[in-house]
Amino acid sequence: MSLTRYFKNLLATSTLLLLATGYALAEPAAELRGTGDLGVVIERATGSVALVDTSAKTVLRHIEGLGDLSHASVKFTRDARYAFVFGRDGGLTKLDLLTGEVVERVIQSGNSIGGAISQDGRFVAVGNYEPGGVKIFDVETLELLLDVPTTYEKEDGTTDQSKVVGLVDIPDNRFIFTLFDAGEIWILDMSTTEPELTKFRDIGSMPYDALITSNGRYYIAGLFGEDGLAMLDLWSPEQGVQRILPDYGRGEERLPVYKMPHLEGWAMAGDRAFFPAVGRNEVLVANTSDWSLNSRIEVHGQPIFVMSRPDERQVWVTFAHPLNDRVQVIDTQTLEVIQTIEAGESILHKEFTPRGEHIWISARDSHQIVVYDTRTFEELARLSAESPSGIFFTHRAHQIGL
Amino acid sequence: MSLTRYFKNLLATSTLLLLATGYALAEPAAELRGTGDLGVVIERATGSVALVDTSAKTVLRHIEGLGDLSHASVKFTRDARYAFVFGRDGGLTKLDLLTGEVVERVIQSGNSIGGAISQDGRFVAVGNYEPGGVKIFDVETLELLLDVPTTYEKEDGTTDQSKVVGLVDIPDNRFIFTLFDAGEIWILDMSTTEPELTKFRDIGSMPYDALITSNGRYYIAGLFGEDGLAMLDLWSPEQGVQRILPDYGRGEERLPVYKMPHLEGWAMAGDRAFFPAVGRNEVLVANTSDWSLNSRIEVHGQPIFVMSRPDERQVWVTFAHPLNDRVQVIDTQTLEVIQTIEAGESILHKEFTPRGEHIWISARDSHQIVVYDTRTFEELARLSAESPSGIFFTHRAHQIGL
Repeated sequence: MSLTRYFKNLLATSTLLLLATGYALAEPAAELRGTGDLGVVIERATGSVALVDTSAKTVLRHIEGLGDLSHASVKFTRDARYAFVFGRDGGLTKLDLLTGEVVERVIQSGNSIGGAISQDGRFVAVGNYEPGGVKIFDVETLELLLDVPTTYEKEDGTTDQSKVVGLVDIPDNRFIFTLFDAGEIWILDMSTTEPELTKFRDIGSMPYDALITSNGRYYIAGLFGEDGLAMLDLWSPEQGVQRILPDYGRGEERLPVYKMPHLEGWAMAGDRAFFPAVGRNEVLVANTSDWSLNSRIEVHGQPIFVMSRPDERQVWVTFAHPLNDRVQVIDTQTLEVIQTIEAGESILHKEFTPRGEHIWISARDSHQIVVYDTRTFEELARLSAESPSGIFFTHRAHQIGL
Repeated sequence: MSLTRYFKNLLATSTLLLLATGYALAEPAAELRGTGDLGVVIERATGSVALVDTSAKTVLRHIEGLGDLSHASVKFTRDARYAFVFGRDGGLTKLDLLTGEVVERVIQSGNSIGGAISQDGRFVAVGNYEPGGVKIFDVETLELLLDVPTTYEKEDGTTDQSKVVGLVDIPDNRFIFTLFDAGEIWILDMSTTEPELTKFRDIGSMPYDALITSNGRYYIAGLFGEDGLAMLDLWSPEQGVQRILPDYGRGEERLPVYKMPHLEGWAMAGDRAFFPAVGRNEVLVANTSDWSLNSRIEVHGQPIFVMSRPDERQVWVTFAHPLNDRVQVIDTQTLEVIQTIEAGESILHKEFTPRGEHIWISARDSHQIVVYDTRTFEELARLSAESPSGIFFTHRAHQIGL
């Protein structure tokens, strides 16, 4: 074989190599790696997210073009490869955590408040503010599969669509959500080819948010228009919606309410629930067997997120403006505040690593995410991010209601 | 540039390409994919494992060369990319779930009973039968970092190493394990550079297995040599080891015991624990607030694994030989057996998908893994495997004690 022929063969081989490896060359950042220690941090000011690695405690990359993320949340597919980002502008974006690409993006309403992925991993549901209603999309293709209008009759006899809040997945491939304007809780059963709706009416005035307990049993909605909370025991739905903690809210002597607390942050530790008082510098403790109020724990400010470390031994609390420069830690046995941490300016959200050894905290106005050891309270890392807010790790893919 | 020079440059480029892409070429089966829906099934007769995909409900491949897997267990790294397989022959094998390769394999003792990965993901611990003791390895390199002999004094005054059972990880980067021969529980604290041992002595006669509750609080060891169970409340270690359920075991009127039940299978549902009776065709129910025995549920055979669906609404039970051809489902509210399933011959193990919509069951002598819908009890898939036994899904990476 002549030298020229050799080079020609080599050229052919090179071309094949280029074709065979085109993907790797075009996407040098797509890395063969496990997805169990990845996470997404919302960067609210820039419409971007930071993709993070909780083992290395680093930001891997920033992904842009996600629209208005001023109140955004994230859910993960059951293989923990893709994240769905629910944006304030009604945008629903599917991200590939391995390539960093936006796989698909639709503007599915004018304003959305969050969503959920079904237990079987096939459906992504979005709850909408404007124009209201719930939409169900195919997780693979983002094709619209079902549009559930939340029509209700107003006092003047006309009809409208209610804003939807507190949409979460529950066992048996169902979604549950709350109609703010209508004061109703609906269950959408996606377990068969003929989806079914079950409606619970007159649950209370202006339910503004809701939570589901980690076993998917209790669905609890907060009421803006009256005292108490509306609770549905999904193991006994025939009992209907019951009122619990009747003095919660207006019944308490109130400070000015800077921000209604998030209900999703409720911490369940054994048979006790730790949750934010409304308008008071207190974390409340209830007994979950009868939902009676047990204790009030004095804290630094008006609590927003009250979250339990995965082993239930600590509860971490963030606060409303203007006292949102600190985070406090409560011991769930002694009910005492055991640590106060100054993590940065405008602390918005926090997330524990799956087994609870670390916590990641977003300090929006410091443009930093700070990682702490939850045993020693030592600062382990301080990462740069653009106005970081919500932090979501991929282990949520495997949990009911998360 | 001459043509020859061009080809020379091309040659150089090609070589670089080959180097850069050598991995992808050598391992065409390594797929860019999420690892959240992967799992490993032990194939005990052939010393191999089946790598499975719980979304597609398929066996992706079989990986061979893992030695004696007649009593094997699996733990996953915190990124959910690698699995550690603990073999009966003392083999510790690190598998790459993405490439299907055995990354590293050491024979670290003569006979091992299982292991755990530390909360921070850095250490893999193995509990050994022969010659006893615990070894700690680096998760990355499998380098031996620490050898903890379980030396104890025998009645004749000589010393020996105790067999180690029930080794699990607990919060604060610690491991806990039980010394069968010595009747002791030890805690190994790996949170600092100077590992520390804490020993609890005289816990009872011949503790043969142990479990940890999902929050890492209660560690409970079963006793072969006497009645009752030894419980350590890790939130109050100063109280020492207490005896619970004093009649558990010998105190009951006994049938022949075909196989001691697995403790790790205890199902915790709310404030109730469901667990296997010893030598009786019963599942027992205890109240976890005071560990009193509440109920006995009559079942098909002597229960081995009693496992709670992740939402705690059902408990699934497998049985000892010769009645190991069926699986039964108990409703945790009514305490009634609501379903009996004939899944195949010699049913050994089962695993729920993370959010509980499916269960995978291994039927050893049918050489099949069978997948069921836990709501309808419909059979969804029947997969071929060589004498399948233990089934382990990657979401365990994110849970305390799993």
